[in-house]
Amino acid sequence: MNGEYWQPEIETMPREKLRQLQTEKLRRTIETALNSPFYGHRLGKLGITPQSINSVDDIRKIPFTTKQDLRDNYPFGLVAGNMKDAIRIHSSSGTTGHPTVVVYSRHDIDSWANMIARNMYMVGCRDTDVFQNSSGYGMFTGGLGFQYGAERLGATTVPAAAGNSKRQIMFICDFGTTCLHAIPSYAVRLAEVFKDEGIDPRSTRLHTLFIGAEPHTDEQRRRIEKLLGVKAYNSFGMTEMNGPGVAFECKQQDGMHLWEDNYIVEIVDPDTLEPVPDGEYGEMVLTTLDRTMMPILRYRTRDLTRIIPGKCACGRTHRRIDRIKGRTDDMFIIKGVNVFPMQVEKILAQFPVLGSNYLITLDTVDDNDIMTVEVELDDMRTDVYPELQKITRNIQRTLKDEILLTPKIKLVNKGSIPTSEGKAVRVKDLREGRGQNHAE
Amino acid sequence: MNGEYWQPEIETMPREKLRQLQTEKLRRTIETALNSPFYGHRLGKLGITPQSINSVDDIRKIPFTTKQDLRDNYPFGLVAGNMKDAIRIHSSSGTTGHPTVVVYSRHDIDSWANMIARNMYMVGCRDTDVFQNSSGYGMFTGGLGFQYGAERLGATTVPAAAGNSKRQIMFICDFGTTCLHAIPSYAVRLAEVFKDEGIDPRSTRLHTLFIGAEPHTDEQRRRIEKLLGVKAYNSFGMTEMNGPGVAFECKQQDGMHLWEDNYIVEIVDPDTLEPVPDGEYGEMVLTTLDRTMMPILRYRTRDLTRIIPGKCACGRTHRRIDRIKGRTDDMFIIKGVNVFPMQVEKILAQFPVLGSNYLITLDTVDDNDIMTVEVELDDMRTDVYPELQKITRNIQRTLKDEILLTPKIKLVNKGSIPTSEGKAVRVKDLREGRGQNHAE
Ligand SMILES: [Zn+2]
Ligand SMILES: [Zn+2]
Repeated sequence: MNGEYWQPEIETMPREKLRQLQTEKLRRTIETALNSPFYGHRLGKLGITPQSINSVDDIRKIPFTTKQDLRDNYPFGLVAGNMKDAIRIHSSSGTTGHPTVVVYSRHDIDSWANMIARNMYMVGCRDTDVFQNSSGYGMFTGGLGFQYGAERLGATTVPAAAGNSKRQIMFICDFGTTCLHAIPSYAVRLAEVFKDEGIDPRSTRLHTLFIGAEPHTDEQRRRIEKLLGVKAYNSFGMTEMNGPGVAFECKQQDGMHLWEDNYIVEIVDPDTLEPVPDGEYGEMVLTTLDRTMMPILRYRTRDLTRIIPGKCACGRTHRRIDRIKGRTDDMFIIKGVNVFPMQVEKILAQFPVLGSNYLITLDTVDDNDIMTVEVELDDMRTDVYPELQKITRNIQRTLKDEILLTPKIKLVNKGSIPTSEGKAVRVKDLREGRGQNHAE
Repeated sequence: MNGEYWQPEIETMPREKLRQLQTEKLRRTIETALNSPFYGHRLGKLGITPQSINSVDDIRKIPFTTKQDLRDNYPFGLVAGNMKDAIRIHSSSGTTGHPTVVVYSRHDIDSWANMIARNMYMVGCRDTDVFQNSSGYGMFTGGLGFQYGAERLGATTVPAAAGNSKRQIMFICDFGTTCLHAIPSYAVRLAEVFKDEGIDPRSTRLHTLFIGAEPHTDEQRRRIEKLLGVKAYNSFGMTEMNGPGVAFECKQQDGMHLWEDNYIVEIVDPDTLEPVPDGEYGEMVLTTLDRTMMPILRYRTRDLTRIIPGKCACGRTHRRIDRIKGRTDDMFIIKGVNVFPMQVEKILAQFPVLGSNYLITLDTVDDNDIMTVEVELDDMRTDVYPELQKITRNIQRTLKDEILLTPKIKLVNKGSIPTSEGKAVRVKDLREGRGQNHAE
């Protein structure tokens, strides 16, 4: 393993061969899943067996699994293996309703550790590196997930866990930490404490950051890279799919390779649940291909992303997903049409005259639902009224093409739209009987 | 591994064979240790090599290692292996001075996990058990230590981590937790929350508790067992010696088997540093026998305990240590004599008329150091003056036999001596130039 790839054969596997591998593993996964009370009943009713699968595309014969299914079958209704072979349980925090529980066999833990090791290796981490994990441990998968993966890689791990920034910095300095796992906001916090302590992060050996769990923009990433003098790589994962390690950026920093030997990824229209073409945004649906204890089939992640079309310069053949743009939970319905704030955002981004801050207001006027989009102008590029009118009409027309509705457009000065602690409120629903603000 | 022992051959090894094994492993340990800057210098100066060891007793040729040595050589001065082979670093909290750092190779982590698995197996845990760890994770060894050990055993682990008692209880109920690792005070807290939640711990599957890290009495253990309806087993460990897993109680609950295939244990007089006979209390000195990255030779643990003489009914041949009675740090010197509060306590405990609460006051009167022992009477058994006088003289005489000093004795009513939050102040030093209170 002195080359560029942790598992060269798998990572650069020709797509046709990869699809064959997926087909085989999907068959095996169905066979296993049928042993769980949940899938035994659900798939049994539909007569779905391993023989139903002739190609990966046949996955569409299988019904979706939702978070609600996991909750309704709490705690062990999806467990297909023998609990005697279970060696770990993780669970989500479960602030509403039952927590989401995942049970792992030794095989599952090993497979997960290997995924993390593959990711770390991909961005240049080796057994000579010192890896510090500022993630919470315990039931949260970011702790033990990265711990096992980094040990598999052979790095020297520093299980610092969350919090105590001064101690984190002491470890970075004294133990010669080279790679750090942190959520973006905590990376910014560390940069501040470095400054307070009078230590230049560039004077340490730190060179690589793994960031995940929190949505963030590429600008935020670049800022963190500059603040700490590191390269920062995006990581995608979720407890239902093991934890971190599902998809990870390579050195190109242009999308996250989703490991298709271990997962089948689909992007579907969250309304029709039909697949969308590569390049288009939709809800990501994931199927585990390498879990023996608790396989999950066609899990609706509620995360909005897209497949990045084309080949990656790194040589890996596993397709890349874009950074998560939001959650299907942010969707609202107006005049019978499903709208995602992301759709609006995508259109607004096409107008260089506009800034990135916007607010969608839904209101009822004379029993009629009205959608208004307020958007900030970028640095007062123009205040010539006819020109503003022209832009407004242009935005309206393009938005109508996208969302099939004609919203009101209000161009406002930069800084007019309030943001609260980074997490911007994107949708204000003032209609009767609603009171929700959608944040993303 | 369906029998009584995890590793029958090692656990029941005849003592002579065990000593031979120790001799071999001590030689190998010295050979490794010589590669560290610290031991290379210290042992090199004395000409100590593996050939210096003909039997375990030759360990006395090696100088002691102290916590101060670890601090002075922070962070990696005791590292004997190649840092490339290090896969983990743990460290003590280091509230004063540098933290104590331990570096582990993959071998060391495996060996440690095996020790924990051996302990859990010893008290009846099997791969069918569900093990919940309420220890803190991260740098604290109680988290990852038990995590890896329980997974080695094949139990289903619930890495609950510290805090959130209601969630702990939810996990116990919903996941069918059978074994729990907790510090004694937290076990008591859990019992309270069980009560608040209206759940009888006896209605759960919980049957075994591993308790460590905090000093506690056998009465406290019995109380916890009763409160939770479990068997509770003592665990001894310290970060310098890996973490938990150094010594552990068997089902006899009569002392902790110290795993002599992995450690050499000595009990020495903390003043003369000469060995004390089996059965007598002294400072425990430990040598690692199975660490490749950072061996430690003759580490003065500052923990006071004794070897329990005789064979254990369980058939294991590894000697047992008694529960930790205190720290050598609690020692004080009066008129040139070293005194441990524990010595006084041991004597007082022989008088049924006395309660368990006492206070030693050291004072200077006319340039003369005076030691006064105040001790509470148990439930006002007597208030007849001549009888009290007789008891007082009796205590004085017996104490003099033990500590070679004649202290003043003051018998006081029950409840007269203040206790602060469970941690009783045992020694008040009012002599000139001192201001320390010794707690234990
Ligand atoms: Zn790539
Ligand atoms: Zn025993």
